[in-house]
Amino acid sequence: MAKNKKRIVVIGGGTGVFTVLSGLKKYKNVELSAIVTMADDGGSAGMLREEFGILPPGDIRRAIIALSRSDNKMLSELFNFRFKNGKGLTGHNFGNLMITALEQITGDFGKAIHEAEKILQVEGKVIPVTLENAHLYAELVDGRVIKGETNIDIPKHDGRLRIKRAWLKPAVSINPRALRAIKEADGVVIGPGDLFTSIMPNLLVKGMKEALENTRAKKIYVVNIMTKFGETHGFTASEFIKTIISILGENVVDYAIINNRRPTLAQTKKYAEEKSMLVEWADLPKKPVSILGDFLRTRSLIRHDPDKLAKVILSLV
Amino acid sequence: MAKNKKRIVVIGGGTGVFTVLSGLKKYKNVELSAIVTMADDGGSAGMLREEFGILPPGDIRRAIIALSRSDNKMLSELFNFRFKNGKGLTGHNFGNLMITALEQITGDFGKAIHEAEKILQVEGKVIPVTLENAHLYAELVDGRVIKGETNIDIPKHDGRLRIKRAWLKPAVSINPRALRAIKEADGVVIGPGDLFTSIMPNLLVKGMKEALENTRAKKIYVVNIMTKFGETHGFTASEFIKTIISILGENVVDYAIINNRRPTLAQTKKYAEEKSMLVEWADLPKKPVSILGDFLRTRSLIRHDPDKLAKVILSLV
Repeated sequence: MAKNKKRIVVIGGGTGVFTVLSGLKKYKNVELSAIVTMADDGGSAGMLREEFGILPPGDIRRAIIALSRSDNKMLSELFNFRFKNGKGLTGHNFGNLMITALEQITGDFGKAIHEAEKILQVEGKVIPVTLENAHLYAELVDGRVIKGETNIDIPKHDGRLRIKRAWLKPAVSINPRALRAIKEADGVVIGPGDLFTSIMPNLLVKGMKEALENTRAKKIYVVNIMTKFGETHGFTASEFIKTIISILGENVVDYAIINNRRPTLAQTKKYAEEKSMLVEWADLPKKPVSILGDFLRTRSLIRHDPDKLAKVILSLV
Repeated sequence: MAKNKKRIVVIGGGTGVFTVLSGLKKYKNVELSAIVTMADDGGSAGMLREEFGILPPGDIRRAIIALSRSDNKMLSELFNFRFKNGKGLTGHNFGNLMITALEQITGDFGKAIHEAEKILQVEGKVIPVTLENAHLYAELVDGRVIKGETNIDIPKHDGRLRIKRAWLKPAVSINPRALRAIKEADGVVIGPGDLFTSIMPNLLVKGMKEALENTRAKKIYVVNIMTKFGETHGFTASEFIKTIISILGENVVDYAIINNRRPTLAQTKKYAEEKSMLVEWADLPKKPVSILGDFLRTRSLIRHDPDKLAKVILSLV
């Protein structure tokens, strides 16, 4: 391990982690770890979780692909492939099946991830936030309790209802490898990603708050660009930040990265159909330090630009 | 392609091909191709064949593992792994699923094999004997016709009844890549392997006989060590050879390799239960030239020793 390398830990789930990792992995002087949520209970991961009793590999899979240095593009494509037919196979993701098979062979989920990392020539580490099994719960403002990541992610309830609080049941503890990675890090990036279904399931794990309090790493929260119906409908940047602070406390996060470039009308059209709106940035709190700028991808989907994000993150660490 | 390399083509299916390949692959001056049968219709391969309409990947998979030069032993183990639980997954082999997924991604079975070869770092070529879909049929001496490789392999009929003849339906043609490999070969090894379910489905393909007639390669047939109940019950070496000659004609095969070392009593015990007996070697035909010798593995299963086989094969090519 070279001493002058910057150690950066990325915490999250879904495509957000993928975006941050794919920007940062272009820098040779950066050593990356991804800590990913384990509360995924839908689709292929959910089926495997149900049938094999193992932890869900979905977010692990995406992080492994993001950190793969293999020249073999087919390998990444294969790892992402989802069966569209075949009795019993339909809906299963190949990467999930591979991690499941490796877990059955090695008898250990951690080893299974390590073997998958070797096969896909991962540079960096992919770390499940916990090695214990838990489900995500959320209480809406009207008092109703929703069980399961998928039911929060794809709401059957009125999507305008806000989430009051979220928790994991049973309470699960942080993976010791995640703890160590955070302790040794120079920078920790939280998000972007679905606030309650990708970010919170990491922060809610027992020991995560203390780990972030006790590291000398710079802590950076990347605020989402768009709201999400059923989860963060109508949220401003300030409300995103306050939700994080409600779990971690006021003094943990050092910087909040907020995009202030407005997407084009053409870009927003598809989002309007999904009742997803631009996150506005008025009335920002004094803490953490807000960093406003153009962090937007210029084409197609409204997402963070991996290179712009990597640049600002590295300027802070 | 180095000019002084010996090009050897191995034709068969099942564990026989694996044995021959694993012995020969230790020689740096040998360039290997495996031509494998495509009539497998049982188990995982059968399910995939039924549901995806693709050619069965079982024998392909075994040949790929045999030729893998990857240092990652877990990769071979993974490729061979069979799911023991999971709704819809039970019985599926991981390697078969991988080839199926690659076929769905690339839209082409040949390309799928090529990609699997790259992932497993195969040195050599694995070639399906045909790219067309066919089922194997066999007629017993009592006139009954059995359909399907699995029904012949694991007989529901009286296993003492011999097979009179076998054929593929529909009649399928040789894969042009198999044709080229045979044409350019210095040696062609046929077998060992189940005579009617692993060897014949290769020889019965349209164009195979002509390919073997027209190559300048030495043709070597490796006679099985043990008989198989339901398929070759009571067969002598001479009968094995005559069955091959009945398809290829008398002048095609140059050498027949016959083991004449008797296994230990401890070794034969398990085989007696399966009504499998030692193949005796009296009354051998004048053609092909018979090469009798100790080609037996000294431990556990009664199988050919890969190194002893490789040595005798290379002495003939």
